[in-house]
Amino acid sequence: MESNKKTNITLINPFEVPEGKIEESIVYWEACRDFLKKEPGYISTKLHKSIKEGSKFELINVAVWESPKAFTEASQKMAKELGVLPPEGLKANPSLYSVISE
Amino acid sequence: MESNKKTNITLINPFEVPEGKIEESIVYWEACRDFLKKEPGYISTKLHKSIKEGSKFELINVAVWESPKAFTEASQKMAKELGVLPPEGLKANPSLYSVISE
Repeated sequence: MESNKKTNITLINPFEVPEGKIEESIVYWEACRDFLKKEPGYISTKLHKSIKEGSKFELINVAVWESPKAFTEASQKMAKELGVLPPEGLKANPSLYSVISE
Repeated sequence: MESNKKTNITLINPFEVPEGKIEESIVYWEACRDFLKKEPGYISTKLHKSIKEGSKFELINVAVWESPKAFTEASQKMAKELGVLPPEGLKANPSLYSVISE
């Protein structure tokens, strides 16, 4: 039986958070997480907060999905259905990655 | 007995990689990893490569350390002792993070 060896994919999304909007940004991120974690291909996610104030990327999300296709379809569905807007000025820099060295 | 509950810390370092220097940057990163993984407090590291060429951050390192102090001391020691220079133009954006939501 051909193993359906899925090469997992990692979404890393460094957020540039406008001053005073950290709490609002976390609430928005959690709404997105609650939507996405029900979608096929979702594996895990971790939201990281910088331990130093004023870092370039105060929040960084690192999520693992079964495939680029699973992630893309889930985020397109979220864009249509979530109905929650991100805080003004919150800038995301998402890309998909594979692990190449440990 | 007071448990020495260590709150691990996560270093996330998005790299801006100059065109044509991806291989050189990976070799440089692996020299740093080989140095750092012998230092006290090192737990794990994963180098992520963007699956799409031309991403803002073509490489992102995500490493876990026992404490900010362990990481800071190890990287200061590396700066003095490694003796390998980063490829010209390679721009690092390192910060220390804690996981706040999963």
